[in-house]
Amino acid sequence: MFGNTMYRDTGLKIRTLHVRDIRFPTSLGSHGSDAMHVDCNYSCTYVIIYTEGDVEGHGLTFTIGHGNEIVVAAVKSLSPLVVGQDADQIFNDFACFWRKLTSDSQLRWIGPEKGVIHLATAAIINALWDLWANLQQKPLWKLLVDMEPEKLVSTIDFRYISDVVTKEEAVAMLKAMETGKEEREEQMKRVGYPAYTTQAGWLGYSNEHVKTLCSQYLANGFTAFKVKVGQNLEDDRRRCTMVRKIIGWDNKLMVDANQVWDIEQAIEWMKQLAEFKPLWIEEPTSPDDILGHATISKALKPLGIGVATGEMCCNRVMFKQFLQARAMQYCQIDSCRIGGVNEVLSVYFMAKKLGVPVCPHAGGVGLCEMVQHLQIFDYICLTGTTEGRMIEYTNQQHEHFENPIKVIHAHYIAPKMPGYSTVMKPDSVEAYEYPHGSKWQEMFAKGLFPDPTKQNVFVCPAK
Amino acid sequence: MFGNTMYRDTGLKIRTLHVRDIRFPTSLGSHGSDAMHVDCNYSCTYVIIYTEGDVEGHGLTFTIGHGNEIVVAAVKSLSPLVVGQDADQIFNDFACFWRKLTSDSQLRWIGPEKGVIHLATAAIINALWDLWANLQQKPLWKLLVDMEPEKLVSTIDFRYISDVVTKEEAVAMLKAMETGKEEREEQMKRVGYPAYTTQAGWLGYSNEHVKTLCSQYLANGFTAFKVKVGQNLEDDRRRCTMVRKIIGWDNKLMVDANQVWDIEQAIEWMKQLAEFKPLWIEEPTSPDDILGHATISKALKPLGIGVATGEMCCNRVMFKQFLQARAMQYCQIDSCRIGGVNEVLSVYFMAKKLGVPVCPHAGGVGLCEMVQHLQIFDYICLTGTTEGRMIEYTNQQHEHFENPIKVIHAHYIAPKMPGYSTVMKPDSVEAYEYPHGSKWQEMFAKGLFPDPTKQNVFVCPAK
Repeated sequence: MFGNTMYRDTGLKIRTLHVRDIRFPTSLGSHGSDAMHVDCNYSCTYVIIYTEGDVEGHGLTFTIGHGNEIVVAAVKSLSPLVVGQDADQIFNDFACFWRKLTSDSQLRWIGPEKGVIHLATAAIINALWDLWANLQQKPLWKLLVDMEPEKLVSTIDFRYISDVVTKEEAVAMLKAMETGKEEREEQMKRVGYPAYTTQAGWLGYSNEHVKTLCSQYLANGFTAFKVKVGQNLEDDRRRCTMVRKIIGWDNKLMVDANQVWDIEQAIEWMKQLAEFKPLWIEEPTSPDDILGHATISKALKPLGIGVATGEMCCNRVMFKQFLQARAMQYCQIDSCRIGGVNEVLSVYFMAKKLGVPVCPHAGGVGLCEMVQHLQIFDYICLTGTTEGRMIEYTNQQHEHFENPIKVIHAHYIAPKMPGYSTVMKPDSVEAYEYPHGSKWQEMFAKGLFPDPTKQNVFVCPAK
Repeated sequence: MFGNTMYRDTGLKIRTLHVRDIRFPTSLGSHGSDAMHVDCNYSCTYVIIYTEGDVEGHGLTFTIGHGNEIVVAAVKSLSPLVVGQDADQIFNDFACFWRKLTSDSQLRWIGPEKGVIHLATAAIINALWDLWANLQQKPLWKLLVDMEPEKLVSTIDFRYISDVVTKEEAVAMLKAMETGKEEREEQMKRVGYPAYTTQAGWLGYSNEHVKTLCSQYLANGFTAFKVKVGQNLEDDRRRCTMVRKIIGWDNKLMVDANQVWDIEQAIEWMKQLAEFKPLWIEEPTSPDDILGHATISKALKPLGIGVATGEMCCNRVMFKQFLQARAMQYCQIDSCRIGGVNEVLSVYFMAKKLGVPVCPHAGGVGLCEMVQHLQIFDYICLTGTTEGRMIEYTNQQHEHFENPIKVIHAHYIAPKMPGYSTVMKPDSVEAYEYPHGSKWQEMFAKGLFPDPTKQNVFVCPAK
């Protein structure tokens, strides 16, 4: 089913790049609510790259509503660096192109490599990887698995991380794992990669709803459950008690504070939740506080609680330090906050070098679809184990994708279709494009959300 | 000349907020060129807040060209959180408002507190401080100096930094320095605050130009000179030799690499420049690499070279760690990369606590105008010394401001006019608004720059 290399000699020039603001009204059901983000509308900045030969690459970055328009604007500002380029030349020296995109002499000032401009970079870079996988007629994970180690490593910019991992070390890591690749690939196709669920424990859900969901996930084979905490200690204890009662003590429980605490507060709060034996506390404090996370990690180690973070870790330099400082025991890469596949790969190599398991952040819009490819690559080519590793799972927004994830008995089954699983259904795009899509127009008419085009809040410069 | 408190009971509701994209064609003269930023057009996102009583607040954030349009878009997205608010209520609990602006449940995802959204926050927050100073008819530094310690500290959000400094400690620091405030204030008005110049050493300048400028600055009383390095070692040695020949060995020389090196490379390169006895190496590597800067600091300490950084340090949590880890020996706060005056104040308190001198980043557009207020406050109220401290100085873009800096014998003289010195001249705004301003239209017509409105590079979504 996987075609051989299908490079075409012509038609690889990038003809144009489209970007669209897609938003889903998830705040209506408290889906995705946590201690910091109380009314999310799961959204994405959706990029489509067209080559002259009419092969397409689709990529996206995830946001939670307002601000998606700013990321869309950033994609537009980056697009002159992409349109007109030859895709083949990009893939021949992808690290070089990646650095050009992230190091534009003027644009880098507004990052560098963080926040809006890096989210936009991720959407574009992810679209290029989808294009590459489409050209080769392989799912992205298989494109990575079949690549020569030198070729794969050539996609990574090692600037600022050479003190932890070099190009040569990365190549050697891949070569050392070549034995058994076929068996591991077969396992991923047949059994898949273990998943855990976050779906049962959003803060905004009622007791009954949480109970029902836990039971359902348990019945579906899930053995690991994540619960949101951090707004109210009594409430957290109540929710953890309830969840432990349903899932028992052989299954795993993780808790997630979404950055609400200061350092001491995090330690004290978690001591109060230690009796529920959480595997990890996720995002206990500011996502930028490496030294703070290291302090928390040290304090919670005797309690058997690890620290997990990464979904808001802004680039490889920050990941490098979290790993160096023993500030994360679970490395939660995100497929589109750092600069796309190239930069995510660099984090996998550093995590392997420093012995920290990667458990990707997923959920949102398209994150499950993307991270499965990366984690399956990690298993087949880099670490060869799923020990202490899981992919996050939530049951949301999959219906809007052409090739949604396939999770069976709490395992992600390796995707079969070519690409990065990032193609959205045209009907969904039409309906949920913000603010002009048909669904949004309906919701504005019903008064469920204000119509931003009818508000006079954005004021233009006086002339 | 300073009026007493002039709070008005009415008319403090914020009526509207304007934002404008202002750019200067500085790339035409290689002003501002360094190893990483080779063709800067110094720019700013310029915010004007109007109250119903028609008192105005002007604020800005600095960028270097492309991407300014994205920051402008971010200000527009934040503006609904500002317009309609009562300024008096904001100033009564400024920390609360600051947290609201930086913690919007949806917008914080695209930061949080970093990059584009935080630059936009800075422009807005700076405009509010200018408004506050205007209402009190005082220059900003004097507004700060005259404020009760409790009131001043109430403007700061201590979230994520309470492990280094608390509200109570900050108040105590101010109270401990109350003796001698009048004398120090008089000194700032009469003698001013010491400055160093960056103007002589941009990478793009010719030898002759550098020599002429060094001699001129020396004649004007400057005793500290900063030179850009990092592109070519031989070239760096040549430039340092030349500058040392002119300024001698009693004056200070600083070097600035603008982030081009990896860790080991930074250490090795600086060993080659140690003979020129630089006071500091500025931005040796990624601005996010706290642990890397700590390693470099340790390696260069025996050579008598300190590490300076901060102009791209994205928020107080990062500054906290740089200070905790002894990763910066000179703390270069920027007035508008982190979230405006409130957050900058928190960095001053942490730097004082951990004994690191602040030497603000300036130059660009309006940075000198702003940081003088902050550093003068530091001298009068917080540290009481200029030992090991200087404000950066470049002679650019001052002519576009209504109340430009006054630097006499290499000292910034305390400003007298009310506000934060952030009001731009209407003629400059009209001429340099991008892309429609008259100067830009002239330059497009001459073919000096491409007209972005005539390029078909930004592609709209297909409908």
